[in-house]
Amino acid sequence: MKNEKLWGGRFEKSLEHWVEEFGASITFDQKMAEFDIKGSIAHAKMLGQTGIIDLAESETLVKGLEELLTEYHDGKLVFNVTNEDIHMNMEVLLTQKVGAVAGKLHTARSRNDQVATDMHLYLKYHLSVVNQKLKNLREVLVTLANDHVETIMPGYTHLQHAQPISLGHYFMAYYSMFTRDSDRFTFNMIHTDISPLGAAALAGTTFPINRELTADLMAFSDIYTNSLDAVSDRDFILEFLSNASILMMHMSRMCEELILWCSNECQYISLSDTFSTGSSIMPQKKNPDMAELIRGKTGRVYGNLMSLLTIMKSLPLSYNKDLQEDKEGMFDTVETISVSIDILAGMLETMTINKEKMLYSTEKDFSNATELADYLASKGVPFRQAHEIVGSLVLECTTAGCYLQDVPLTRYKELSPLIEDNIYDVLQSQTAVKRRNSLGGTGFEQVKHQISLAKSTLSSE
Amino acid sequence: MKNEKLWGGRFEKSLEHWVEEFGASITFDQKMAEFDIKGSIAHAKMLGQTGIIDLAESETLVKGLEELLTEYHDGKLVFNVTNEDIHMNMEVLLTQKVGAVAGKLHTARSRNDQVATDMHLYLKYHLSVVNQKLKNLREVLVTLANDHVETIMPGYTHLQHAQPISLGHYFMAYYSMFTRDSDRFTFNMIHTDISPLGAAALAGTTFPINRELTADLMAFSDIYTNSLDAVSDRDFILEFLSNASILMMHMSRMCEELILWCSNECQYISLSDTFSTGSSIMPQKKNPDMAELIRGKTGRVYGNLMSLLTIMKSLPLSYNKDLQEDKEGMFDTVETISVSIDILAGMLETMTINKEKMLYSTEKDFSNATELADYLASKGVPFRQAHEIVGSLVLECTTAGCYLQDVPLTRYKELSPLIEDNIYDVLQSQTAVKRRNSLGGTGFEQVKHQISLAKSTLSSE
Amino acid sequence: MKNEKLWGGRFEKSLEHWVEEFGASITFDQKMAEFDIKGSIAHAKMLGQTGIIDLAESETLVKGLEELLTEYHDGKLVFNVTNEDIHMNMEVLLTQKVGAVAGKLHTARSRNDQVATDMHLYLKYHLSVVNQKLKNLREVLVTLANDHVETIMPGYTHLQHAQPISLGHYFMAYYSMFTRDSDRFTFNMIHTDISPLGAAALAGTTFPINRELTADLMAFSDIYTNSLDAVSDRDFILEFLSNASILMMHMSRMCEELILWCSNECQYISLSDTFSTGSSIMPQKKNPDMAELIRGKTGRVYGNLMSLLTIMKSLPLSYNKDLQEDKEGMFDTVETISVSIDILAGMLETMTINKEKMLYSTEKDFSNATELADYLASKGVPFRQAHEIVGSLVLECTTAGCYLQDVPLTRYKELSPLIEDNIYDVLQSQTAVKRRNSLGGTGFEQVKHQISLAKSTLSSE
Amino acid sequence: MKNEKLWGGRFEKSLEHWVEEFGASITFDQKMAEFDIKGSIAHAKMLGQTGIIDLAESETLVKGLEELLTEYHDGKLVFNVTNEDIHMNMEVLLTQKVGAVAGKLHTARSRNDQVATDMHLYLKYHLSVVNQKLKNLREVLVTLANDHVETIMPGYTHLQHAQPISLGHYFMAYYSMFTRDSDRFTFNMIHTDISPLGAAALAGTTFPINRELTADLMAFSDIYTNSLDAVSDRDFILEFLSNASILMMHMSRMCEELILWCSNECQYISLSDTFSTGSSIMPQKKNPDMAELIRGKTGRVYGNLMSLLTIMKSLPLSYNKDLQEDKEGMFDTVETISVSIDILAGMLETMTINKEKMLYSTEKDFSNATELADYLASKGVPFRQAHEIVGSLVLECTTAGCYLQDVPLTRYKELSPLIEDNIYDVLQSQTAVKRRNSLGGTGFEQVKHQISLAKSTLSSE
Repeated sequence: MKNEKLWGGRFEKSLEHWVEEFGASITFDQKMAEFDIKGSIAHAKMLGQTGIIDLAESETLVKGLEELLTEYHDGKLVFNVTNEDIHMNMEVLLTQKVGAVAGKLHTARSRNDQVATDMHLYLKYHLSVVNQKLKNLREVLVTLANDHVETIMPGYTHLQHAQPISLGHYFMAYYSMFTRDSDRFTFNMIHTDISPLGAAALAGTTFPINRELTADLMAFSDIYTNSLDAVSDRDFILEFLSNASILMMHMSRMCEELILWCSNECQYISLSDTFSTGSSIMPQKKNPDMAELIRGKTGRVYGNLMSLLTIMKSLPLSYNKDLQEDKEGMFDTVETISVSIDILAGMLETMTINKEKMLYSTEKDFSNATELADYLASKGVPFRQAHEIVGSLVLECTTAGCYLQDVPLTRYKELSPLIEDNIYDVLQSQTAVKRRNSLGGTGFEQVKHQISLAKSTLSSE
Repeated sequence: MKNEKLWGGRFEKSLEHWVEEFGASITFDQKMAEFDIKGSIAHAKMLGQTGIIDLAESETLVKGLEELLTEYHDGKLVFNVTNEDIHMNMEVLLTQKVGAVAGKLHTARSRNDQVATDMHLYLKYHLSVVNQKLKNLREVLVTLANDHVETIMPGYTHLQHAQPISLGHYFMAYYSMFTRDSDRFTFNMIHTDISPLGAAALAGTTFPINRELTADLMAFSDIYTNSLDAVSDRDFILEFLSNASILMMHMSRMCEELILWCSNECQYISLSDTFSTGSSIMPQKKNPDMAELIRGKTGRVYGNLMSLLTIMKSLPLSYNKDLQEDKEGMFDTVETISVSIDILAGMLETMTINKEKMLYSTEKDFSNATELADYLASKGVPFRQAHEIVGSLVLECTTAGCYLQDVPLTRYKELSPLIEDNIYDVLQSQTAVKRRNSLGGTGFEQVKHQISLAKSTLSSE
Repeated sequence: MKNEKLWGGRFEKSLEHWVEEFGASITFDQKMAEFDIKGSIAHAKMLGQTGIIDLAESETLVKGLEELLTEYHDGKLVFNVTNEDIHMNMEVLLTQKVGAVAGKLHTARSRNDQVATDMHLYLKYHLSVVNQKLKNLREVLVTLANDHVETIMPGYTHLQHAQPISLGHYFMAYYSMFTRDSDRFTFNMIHTDISPLGAAALAGTTFPINRELTADLMAFSDIYTNSLDAVSDRDFILEFLSNASILMMHMSRMCEELILWCSNECQYISLSDTFSTGSSIMPQKKNPDMAELIRGKTGRVYGNLMSLLTIMKSLPLSYNKDLQEDKEGMFDTVETISVSIDILAGMLETMTINKEKMLYSTEKDFSNATELADYLASKGVPFRQAHEIVGSLVLECTTAGCYLQDVPLTRYKELSPLIEDNIYDVLQSQTAVKRRNSLGGTGFEQVKHQISLAKSTLSSE
Repeated sequence: MKNEKLWGGRFEKSLEHWVEEFGASITFDQKMAEFDIKGSIAHAKMLGQTGIIDLAESETLVKGLEELLTEYHDGKLVFNVTNEDIHMNMEVLLTQKVGAVAGKLHTARSRNDQVATDMHLYLKYHLSVVNQKLKNLREVLVTLANDHVETIMPGYTHLQHAQPISLGHYFMAYYSMFTRDSDRFTFNMIHTDISPLGAAALAGTTFPINRELTADLMAFSDIYTNSLDAVSDRDFILEFLSNASILMMHMSRMCEELILWCSNECQYISLSDTFSTGSSIMPQKKNPDMAELIRGKTGRVYGNLMSLLTIMKSLPLSYNKDLQEDKEGMFDTVETISVSIDILAGMLETMTINKEKMLYSTEKDFSNATELADYLASKGVPFRQAHEIVGSLVLECTTAGCYLQDVPLTRYKELSPLIEDNIYDVLQSQTAVKRRNSLGGTGFEQVKHQISLAKSTLSSE
């Protein structure tokens, strides 16, 4: 009945197994196994170099840890829920390998700074992977934009046709969003790439450790300046979850549009069979499942953010067991966004775009109404009055069942003698898009300019 | 390259494996395997009884499904990510067992109504388990309350000592909260215990199915009256996640207090070693880990609620793949609250209560100030004026470093000639608690009355 | 500099004004003014009848409070941030009116039970208003369903045309959802319609109060049985916010569809000018603003839920100032859902439905594919095989640019000799809908049955 | 009945007043009035300089707008719900002032880019104010840290005494957190300080506008490169709400501790009367209301974040009316964090710290257990074994009712002959803290080093 845990000295009784299971984290924190070993190697080397333990002992520990790393990569390590977490499991495995000297590894270290170190290493690695994936997605978008500078599609506000735009311009809007996402992950790196190792339980240690050395060995760029903060801080994860939430929000918007564009009502695109699925009952169905799933997974990531914000709220310093709940949401978010980015890029690369449908759709609407108003305004009619004239004409056309390009010049002349017969060119979608040549606008020259800027940004990253 | 899926007829190409994995749910929806089989058995029987398929075919299907159920319980079923979800996996396994007739099982059924059926069955089962566990927790609380009717503790507002109360009264407050939680899960059952089977994809079916029969076979109390609603509705899960969030909130409040009470500053309780853990670095530590973990898991459940609310927002009818994301949060919440309830009950049952510390703490404070104000008010001083007199006296005592019970009668007489020497009895914690005998108050008689009501409620459940 | 607050006796210094403002709630809790006065009237009457104060004093208090109520309704009461909250403001106003006897009103009462009483009264009133508004919305839906039993529209899954359905069936799906919402608010009433008055600060009181009497005077159906719980409990508000979130989710789904249906791509409906707005720059725009705004307000209500869940997490008993943050979210949610329900009902009542567009849309798709598969299955082909045959035919048609109804009988015969020329009738949208006559299905008889059930439910409420 | 709105040309009927009210934003977006006018002035100047309108017209517009700004500051502008929002209200007011030429102001502009401009200007201003307030709070912390380098307090993990620490170290931990908050708001500025003006409705404009000029006139550092993105992007607000949530989380942690420290059980601090309030019923109460309220307001800010994330989810490009819901949460968050920071700084500056209580508390616990273990480890005992020895000794002391410093040397010698009589010095709190001199540790030298770094950071900002 005596407590056999490594921390069991002051305990008379041990945990029942179901209680132990509730408290254990090894089922999920083993995702950090590689980083845990690497952090321990750095710590062991430092203990030796500072003379806190003998150099020979240090070398024994490092050798043992390196073997564990190899065995881990070979899938040979077996973890045990009784040893609670990845840290205790590793210490037990190391003891089996090198004997009692393994007990010296934990000198001048606590699980509190150890777990923080593991998480910083884990996230640092994955932030960089995510940004690589985002770069690929952004390149896909630039390529698509380049192919579709002069493809005309309906631009929407309120899901109503507003003004015709370039499909290339549309892709570049998402390029801008994903670039900001990438900026955020880069900033996120600053608060992630910091070593907490050496903070020990909460207060530092009386041993003459060398934190610069361990930070260097683990390739951290910075070191926490306050030990209490080092073990209590989860800002880097909250930043990550916020950034991931905004990224998923962007992807959900694009997926919403892909889903709309696949509908029978739009038929603007067709997704590849390799990114579509069918129905168990309806033989005709080809569903944009992957886009829907990304959209749905937005909720998952938002939930992970909300979880950690809730967990951290009102938590007194420094480490509390509540913090054990910080990991699963981070792991899940890393995996969710990584694969979602790849899926979205894949869908975009393989979809078929129906240019004719898109263009046709802009010719059966009133999205050229602003052209007419601007035409009048440019001839000196106050814009507000021009707007009024065109609005009434739209209402007249709706009743008559025609569009602005169908209105005879005589009627136009009645509305305003300023209108000439060049109005019919102005009203064409192609012309409308081309002429919106203000900086950042949808005019072809502008879209080309954006693409050129993006290419140079991407090549410099 | 041809798509080999059961729904693959209209497809020319198949999904790449990593895309398939992204879309597959079998890794988690196998938690509903038992319910999926039971639903299929009911459906197969109905198909036979209504003559939609031959009775012999129906019997073959049922026999095959029953074998699958046995094999599932024996851990012999192997699922495959290529078969996407639990439904398709089961159909493939059944085909391997009974041959092409398995293809008739999906007559007049879609995965849309099938998955809804599985989830209703799953949650129906677990709602009832959760309420059993809550009943146990409530019984533990009533037993503790019964043992501690006359144990005096400081009652708090703003974490300041407010008025002394009965520890039994405190336990009964949580009894009330968990009883409301139980009420909510009972109400939750109403919208859970409804059969969606027969709604098919979204619109019902042209086959002469008998939904009353399948509902009866699965022991559902009610049947969805609208097929679109049947496949789109996730209210029952949202109700569950909301109820679970409120429950976790209650548990987080109690755990917060248990953690406070274990602190060196309070020392009001000591948790059993069987529910405590130590530190890897600090040998003296005995941490209330389990209470902290329950408190932390509140964030997890809130996150699951927020996820599903987000997923459902703005989702057009009827089934969308986004809904696949509804499951993991439900499973996780079921598991989280189930074990948290058990852990909390276990901690409460095994903890040691330090009555002396609690009582002593109420004698070194001003929590008897209301007694003095009420004393004056009951003798005709307007309460607001009595409050003012006592407030000033507290300030005077604070400066002098004494408590109200230490103030000499002569000073009391100066403050008000209405004060008699029975004031010293009135100021005692024990008296203060006993005299708060208003309905629902902390007076011993009232606490006993609450306990007696609770016992009769519990025995009638 | 002395603190002049009603509770200022033990204080040497007062709050600076900007700090006072931070802590004050009168700017928003005045929304409960009417309920605060009514609760005080009940309390004053009880104090007199139990002899805790003189009957004459009680009558003076009641008369003064009734005058305050009249003045409040006449917009004559002026509140002051220095008096913190609605309770203290009322006590000061009462003192101005009736003099020092006002100081007796707070005998045997605390702001802790008083504010809880106000909130229970407030929400009780509004739950009933919300359910009346929901009833109106449900009646609007039933009326629309009744008018559109035989209107054919495309039924969707994955936003793809799945099977044709009755528009009446669609409206009845939302009727079902809003009926569940109403059920939830009715259940919500149970935990709202309980009197906390008499719990005092947290522990009850030594005065011989009569809680049954005050509960009766305020028309509460039940009384809290535990005083600690009474002042700490906010479950009734969390239930409300959860229920409101689910309601908003339902409305967001319907609004999403209304927005889609207004698009140029669908043109299934046209909203009334009285529920639409235009653009400042694009003269042709007629935007479904109100539907978008309801959809957006879903976020607002989710946020209010998440706020209160966060606030309550880990809060030790009993009252803490954090709870002051419980009110604004409740008020905002009451107002948001009340007007959103009315707006949605108004939009539905006044919109124009384009039946021809809806029907036409079901004739230019493959949503009759299930008809063909079911046709084969009903003739003995295993459903899975029938599905495969039809899937391939859809692919063939897509390539050929035709629909299933365009395939010649000779080709059908090749696919299966079981196919007869009645297949062309089976493939018609009207027939497809009509034949889905399973319980709860979209068949006309089924829709009529649902409408008849709904009418009888509504008339019995 | 004709629609009199500025956009009313194509409408036959107008909105009913209650519908108009639902859609209007003037009740809250008037908070941006000043920024709206400034943006219009820049736009008007540019229209003149580019020749899009006459210079004289431009000057008339600018003069009128400048008068409106003065009248706004003088509180003389009256807004009207019929004019929907701040933009339309301003146009109407300008028309009243300068006549029909006001109708030219909206040339080459839409409310879509206008509202985005207002929000960028609003947030840019407030980010800078928030960072000033944070700087003040950080300075308060550094000052406190400086005063309390050698004040000893119990350091906690799991709310259990872990190791004694310096109170100065504790304050510096929060300094680190608030510095990261400040870093985040600085990064937030990058995506905020960008001009969307000129994006027009969504696609740019055909007029020869000069976006660099308007950006300069409004002092923006950057310009959106894609017009669709410019009107759809709310990332800058989401970043702000995330950053504000993390900030509130930090403040909630500190407030939780201040509340604990004020409790009768701790008595480590006493808040100033100027930041405390009393009870309406309990005369002795002095509540840490302000700290509780900040803690509670964490929920409010989390809710605002969750609201906007929900609103943005799945929203198709570009502007949708849902986005109107982005403002109130931003305004509320700006106001909440601004005053919360000031309140926290004020509480810290004015509180009284009870050093003796804090120190005494570290002498009546086992928080020196790590000293003993480290002592043994430094003499060559493997740390794990040292931990075991000390753990057992703690258990022994607990039973005997004494502390480690009370154990006689003879007993120590039995445990390990390596223990000398200098152990009693090692076990003292003061020594324990001083000796934790590893980088970033709580040792006095380390704390002084942190303070010196912070001072130089602050003076360079």
